[in-house]
Amino acid sequence: MKHIIVIHGPNLDLLGERQPEIYGTQTLDELNREIISYGKSLDCEVSCFQSNSESEIIDRLHTFRNDAAGIIINPAGFCHTSVAILDALLAVTVPVVEVHLSNLYKREDFRRTSLTARGALGIISGLGKYGYLLAVKYISDLYQEKQK
Amino acid sequence: MKHIIVIHGPNLDLLGERQPEIYGTQTLDELNREIISYGKSLDCEVSCFQSNSESEIIDRLHTFRNDAAGIIINPAGFCHTSVAILDALLAVTVPVVEVHLSNLYKREDFRRTSLTARGALGIISGLGKYGYLLAVKYISDLYQEKQK
Amino acid sequence: MKHIIVIHGPNLDLLGERQPEIYGTQTLDELNREIISYGKSLDCEVSCFQSNSESEIIDRLHTFRNDAAGIIINPAGFCHTSVAILDALLAVTVPVVEVHLSNLYKREDFRRTSLTARGALGIISGLGKYGYLLAVKYISDLYQEKQK
Amino acid sequence: MKHIIVIHGPNLDLLGERQPEIYGTQTLDELNREIISYGKSLDCEVSCFQSNSESEIIDRLHTFRNDAAGIIINPAGFCHTSVAILDALLAVTVPVVEVHLSNLYKREDFRRTSLTARGALGIISGLGKYGYLLAVKYISDLYQEKQK
Amino acid sequence: MKHIIVIHGPNLDLLGERQPEIYGTQTLDELNREIISYGKSLDCEVSCFQSNSESEIIDRLHTFRNDAAGIIINPAGFCHTSVAILDALLAVTVPVVEVHLSNLYKREDFRRTSLTARGALGIISGLGKYGYLLAVKYISDLYQEKQK
Amino acid sequence: MKHIIVIHGPNLDLLGERQPEIYGTQTLDELNREIISYGKSLDCEVSCFQSNSESEIIDRLHTFRNDAAGIIINPAGFCHTSVAILDALLAVTVPVVEVHLSNLYKREDFRRTSLTARGALGIISGLGKYGYLLAVKYISDLYQEKQK
Amino acid sequence: MKHIIVIHGPNLDLLGERQPEIYGTQTLDELNREIISYGKSLDCEVSCFQSNSESEIIDRLHTFRNDAAGIIINPAGFCHTSVAILDALLAVTVPVVEVHLSNLYKREDFRRTSLTARGALGIISGLGKYGYLLAVKYISDLYQEKQK
Amino acid sequence: MKHIIVIHGPNLDLLGERQPEIYGTQTLDELNREIISYGKSLDCEVSCFQSNSESEIIDRLHTFRNDAAGIIINPAGFCHTSVAILDALLAVTVPVVEVHLSNLYKREDFRRTSLTARGALGIISGLGKYGYLLAVKYISDLYQEKQK
Amino acid sequence: MKHIIVIHGPNLDLLGERQPEIYGTQTLDELNREIISYGKSLDCEVSCFQSNSESEIIDRLHTFRNDAAGIIINPAGFCHTSVAILDALLAVTVPVVEVHLSNLYKREDFRRTSLTARGALGIISGLGKYGYLLAVKYISDLYQEKQK
Amino acid sequence: MKHIIVIHGPNLDLLGERQPEIYGTQTLDELNREIISYGKSLDCEVSCFQSNSESEIIDRLHTFRNDAAGIIINPAGFCHTSVAILDALLAVTVPVVEVHLSNLYKREDFRRTSLTARGALGIISGLGKYGYLLAVKYISDLYQEKQK
Amino acid sequence: MKHIIVIHGPNLDLLGERQPEIYGTQTLDELNREIISYGKSLDCEVSCFQSNSESEIIDRLHTFRNDAAGIIINPAGFCHTSVAILDALLAVTVPVVEVHLSNLYKREDFRRTSLTARGALGIISGLGKYGYLLAVKYISDLYQEKQK
Amino acid sequence: MKHIIVIHGPNLDLLGERQPEIYGTQTLDELNREIISYGKSLDCEVSCFQSNSESEIIDRLHTFRNDAAGIIINPAGFCHTSVAILDALLAVTVPVVEVHLSNLYKREDFRRTSLTARGALGIISGLGKYGYLLAVKYISDLYQEKQK
Repeated sequence: MKHIIVIHGPNLDLLGERQPEIYGTQTLDELNREIISYGKSLDCEVSCFQSNSESEIIDRLHTFRNDAAGIIINPAGFCHTSVAILDALLAVTVPVVEVHLSNLYKREDFRRTSLTARGALGIISGLGKYGYLLAVKYISDLYQEKQK
Repeated sequence: MKHIIVIHGPNLDLLGERQPEIYGTQTLDELNREIISYGKSLDCEVSCFQSNSESEIIDRLHTFRNDAAGIIINPAGFCHTSVAILDALLAVTVPVVEVHLSNLYKREDFRRTSLTARGALGIISGLGKYGYLLAVKYISDLYQEKQK
Repeated sequence: MKHIIVIHGPNLDLLGERQPEIYGTQTLDELNREIISYGKSLDCEVSCFQSNSESEIIDRLHTFRNDAAGIIINPAGFCHTSVAILDALLAVTVPVVEVHLSNLYKREDFRRTSLTARGALGIISGLGKYGYLLAVKYISDLYQEKQK
Repeated sequence: MKHIIVIHGPNLDLLGERQPEIYGTQTLDELNREIISYGKSLDCEVSCFQSNSESEIIDRLHTFRNDAAGIIINPAGFCHTSVAILDALLAVTVPVVEVHLSNLYKREDFRRTSLTARGALGIISGLGKYGYLLAVKYISDLYQEKQK
Repeated sequence: MKHIIVIHGPNLDLLGERQPEIYGTQTLDELNREIISYGKSLDCEVSCFQSNSESEIIDRLHTFRNDAAGIIINPAGFCHTSVAILDALLAVTVPVVEVHLSNLYKREDFRRTSLTARGALGIISGLGKYGYLLAVKYISDLYQEKQK
Repeated sequence: MKHIIVIHGPNLDLLGERQPEIYGTQTLDELNREIISYGKSLDCEVSCFQSNSESEIIDRLHTFRNDAAGIIINPAGFCHTSVAILDALLAVTVPVVEVHLSNLYKREDFRRTSLTARGALGIISGLGKYGYLLAVKYISDLYQEKQK
Repeated sequence: MKHIIVIHGPNLDLLGERQPEIYGTQTLDELNREIISYGKSLDCEVSCFQSNSESEIIDRLHTFRNDAAGIIINPAGFCHTSVAILDALLAVTVPVVEVHLSNLYKREDFRRTSLTARGALGIISGLGKYGYLLAVKYISDLYQEKQK
Repeated sequence: MKHIIVIHGPNLDLLGERQPEIYGTQTLDELNREIISYGKSLDCEVSCFQSNSESEIIDRLHTFRNDAAGIIINPAGFCHTSVAILDALLAVTVPVVEVHLSNLYKREDFRRTSLTARGALGIISGLGKYGYLLAVKYISDLYQEKQK
Repeated sequence: MKHIIVIHGPNLDLLGERQPEIYGTQTLDELNREIISYGKSLDCEVSCFQSNSESEIIDRLHTFRNDAAGIIINPAGFCHTSVAILDALLAVTVPVVEVHLSNLYKREDFRRTSLTARGALGIISGLGKYGYLLAVKYISDLYQEKQK
Repeated sequence: MKHIIVIHGPNLDLLGERQPEIYGTQTLDELNREIISYGKSLDCEVSCFQSNSESEIIDRLHTFRNDAAGIIINPAGFCHTSVAILDALLAVTVPVVEVHLSNLYKREDFRRTSLTARGALGIISGLGKYGYLLAVKYISDLYQEKQK
Repeated sequence: MKHIIVIHGPNLDLLGERQPEIYGTQTLDELNREIISYGKSLDCEVSCFQSNSESEIIDRLHTFRNDAAGIIINPAGFCHTSVAILDALLAVTVPVVEVHLSNLYKREDFRRTSLTARGALGIISGLGKYGYLLAVKYISDLYQEKQK
Repeated sequence: MKHIIVIHGPNLDLLGERQPEIYGTQTLDELNREIISYGKSLDCEVSCFQSNSESEIIDRLHTFRNDAAGIIINPAGFCHTSVAILDALLAVTVPVVEVHLSNLYKREDFRRTSLTARGALGIISGLGKYGYLLAVKYISDLYQEKQK
């Protein structure tokens, strides 16, 4: 079975409660359940993890850097400034997709760039929960392709 | 049947031949066939269109601005500077996803921002041909959801 | 009779439909009729032209660069970036007025400057349809004055 | 009768004498007489006022902020830096048109932006004395339209 | 016989008429005849092409990207902003020389950089018509050298 | 009795009328009465002063630079650009607190910095009328402490 | 009784020892005691908390985001760069005041802006320990006012 | 007799009292007496004037713009931002020297440029009171030379 | 015996595995052993510590700020943005040397500056493992010199 | 016979040895011989000169500023910063061509502009040794043309 | 007798010949004679020196750094970029005046700042030859004053 | 015996006399003797050289670019701007260490970057004379290691 790691960054524990006009009304638990269930339908085992701590996110990336089908990360506010997470991502050897619920390009100036995205294979931004689902599909498809 | 419009911007007609280390070896025809075939599997009719002309892209956006399940656009080099395409996108009322084959954040400075992305719902960048496929899936899913 | 050329830039064909909170509800046809009729009242023959194509706008400027009482241009999104239209304007020998429906200074950062305005005699911005009417009056008055 | 206020900013008292290659040879008195006379022809009573003092201009804006058909202001050098005049303009409830004799876009770098223009409905720049006359016409027409 | 493609960008059709103090009094036809004739003296067949359209220039570059001794391009105003032409140039496999009639370094700020020059082998700027002639000679010499 | 000087900058005479969504509905007179009355409760005599004139504000600062328990200044629009008021503040020897009704950090770019704040002991921004009251308390407490 | 949360950011545990010429000689314990005692005099229960950890500060903000009379935060060095704390503040529904011991505007360039201040109601900077006391008074007064 | 006008800008009335480590201990009266007396020794009648008001300085420049041997201006804090004084200086036809007591290049960033200096013949900065004396000598010498 | 503290920042736990073309193939354990052994040869007891957590690094700096012969810190990715670590360093009273394995000046733009280096005595960058060894020697020599 | 001066700037003495992937394998002596020989074929006497010294280059420019058919200069690293060489070039009255072996636009950021190019008639960049040969031809042709 | 050193920077040997519309028609020899003769009238022995070499200027500053009544330096093009000359000036203990013939503030952008001026007591710019004469007088007066 | 070249840049001849609060009181001779003596203890022959001339430094780098165990360079003021020295360093094939006596990161803005450091293996900054000694040790150790 393909193992996919999902890492949610700071403040995503408040999903559904915080600025719903931007981030929607689904809670993190609901979102995780939907991702996991979708993963199952693609023969993927998805492990979800949320932390407000930069170092816990780095530790998680280290743990799974070689040992997963892929990693999906929403670094939230850390994406704009954390060189440390970028460096951790650069040490990851499995495919990484960076996901953002909102479209970074439509937001305040300081949210328009992602430093961590330089450490990912690609980025999906602005498609809400679908961002995660599509990333799962992508990693699953890529994995399949590589098996051939 | 859901109608999805795919618009490929300048130089994408050379796909497969031009800078394959960045853009891959699949030709545009092959890519389009794969998108269309994938669309069919989701009950979507996909129409693909490529142009090196900013005005033709704007015209195409005008034509389908209210009359499609969604639009997928890879504005290529136009994404960095074309206010005119951005304005056309802002006039579109159906869902728009901007797709880039390469990860913009890993490229030269002048390629790191997308002006047109402000006119899209979301953006998928760096996932190669999968960017298009995932965008098709997204528009199809969104359409389904809205039907409910 | 004084001949005045009006050139509308990209997306202005959607006037009345697109972002009416910014650009108003009058369609381009209605606007053109009002300009032409106002022109007649000042003994001016007004020819209106819209294009989403930078090169067609340049061509039009070349055609009438010496052969009109004046040119009124709303370059829309092209005003922010098109050096080519600026160069075409610098080759025009009759009076040119640049018109914008909205007040550029109240909009997003990237809309605050006009490169093409360096090629015009003057600029009228933010007065809606009146911008065109006043420009017609200006060219007509200037023409009169020069005849003396 | 419609009352229109014209406010000329610093150094415009030297009109006709100072840098005539940029600002023309007409004196301020002559210009005012032409504006007033043109206003009369449109059933408008025009009151002209010139000051080199930022605070006098602010005071004048306060006095007429609700009590005029419209205000025409040429903030001259103050347009580039005066947040205080901008704030006064934001408190005005009648239509305001900012007028500049020369085309700001053709001048030195520090003259290319207008901060105060954010507080006006629109801006006319580069049409010399006609800027004022067109602004009178605009306010008069707008007034008419609102009466309907 | 060596085939050399010369591509003139926007507004160069007005050569000789437009801003002669910068661009000289020779018309485009005269210039083309001189280039062709000089080419002949070096056993080169030169094909000249002018367009105000970005997409036509891109199309032309695609057509001859592998099938010429070399390409000479004066992108004029497009050189400062067109990522699309740059991308087309990056897809060209034959030698490309970018030519500018005037010295970009002596002009306005926004004309001091050339984005498209990143896609050329080299650039000749400020030598007037000689820029084209020297570029012809360069491509011819390079061709000779490679034949050895 | 402790004498405290309150200086209100440009446009604050319109308090309560102007942009109430930002500045509230209390008029300047009402605000001043509340400050004075609060001052009395702390054994402070508060003198309030408003001016739209930079020079009058400078003069007032000069008058009381050594002769008060402290100065509270809301330079309003002048805070962003007036080096002259900053220099006057640098010449003040009694404690100065800069107060802003709104939170400067939440406003337009050009309002995000305060030049004059370099000349104050501290700054209170975004707490509405309470900003003044807290500043009165601060100066009163500081005065008490120094007496010890 | 009104509950007020005070959050001290990184390095404030060294208060009194570290750079006393900037931050004073009072220790954090002494400061906290003074804040708590002042709070009591206003019928407020104040809970003080210090952490060098960004994630602990975020967690604390989450805990009390709806359940306090107000929050006082001195993010110290985190105020300049932490988007994550800003996002946490934007999720807080009770009044937040940001406090800085020193006047940010008088310090090094990189300390002149506060990103987190965008998430607070207001900011008090440069008034030393009084900043906290005034913030307590403000939250208490605001609470009173809302009860009416 | 040659008439020389000396204009001192804002806060120079506090000379000798304010920041003496930068501006010295001589009062403005003493400085003026020294300038006048030195002027007499060169057959010049010197009139000194100080104002904290931008508009009074502009008015003074207008009064003497054609009617003096020369003007010496220390715009103090106004030199960094006042386009209005620059415009007044550009209207002056007699020689103008800008003087600063301190060396602008050694001070804070925002004091390193002088906008008004573009309107002067030359600038003397950092030589204390001597700046004024040398400017008097310069105007006197220049006057002499022109008489020949 | 002289006690020296070595603090390794985020991702240095992956030394030897991560981007060996930049950081070399020696693991952190091997590096630490070499530093400790070299320290012993100079009569220094070296304690090594690695953390991916900003707050743990700050805590460690607080613990040893007065109680060591010196501190060697490689803040890795934190050096570019962490004001909090800079503030902790400014509170350290023993000598601090910042060490980087790679030459910051040869890397990406955002890696070219070190904010934390302002809090160190000096910096050694680009000399690989030798950077640590030389820093140990420096602290040891400095200690010796101070003993005299 | 036409005399042409060739000035090679710093480090060009290492041509052929230094970074051959950028500058080629031809030595400076070989290059000079090729230039001189090509010059002869056009009836030009070419004098070549290399220096690592800014002042020697300035002196050389002074010597030949009026006394040559033209000057060809490759200022190498000096082109990016030397105002002194620019000033020397501005004093030259014979035609000057600036030559660079590599294409400046393809190199590091700090190499993308040429300050000295403002003092030349034109610039040839990126054509290797041919840059010099074409410049010789240009000066020779220009000289011929002027003789007519 | 007071010894004053005058140092003329690069290209000033061409004074009178080079760009006379900016720098005048007086040659360097004539200028030096006038400075020396004026110095004599004030009991000063003036030694003049010109060099196009940065190192010779530095050497000269080192030689006279403690052994002259004062130094007058016109660093010409070096003033904009030479940190080395600035450092030499910072090592000079006698008064230094920087002189520029033209008004730096009226020239191209890159000429608007002087780095070396940070190492001088003051600067005189734009007064032509008088700049030198006034600097001689200033040093002479200062010397006199110090003798008292 | 290993030969190490030490190159001191401009103004270092004044070491011990110039700004001792930054650069210390040791003279260059004393420093050189200490470096040489330390070198001997490591079996290295150290040759020291100082020059205020950019070209002499370049020449020295050329001389020893292949023929030394390593080069230690303190480019002093040249490090911030000299592309020519950077290019010379890029041509050096033996190890180069750049040394600065003071910590560049603690100094004025324009001293915070080193351009030449891109041409060195590494940089040691802020450790005073120890910087040189450590660099000697580094080159010696590296040499040893390579011999193995």
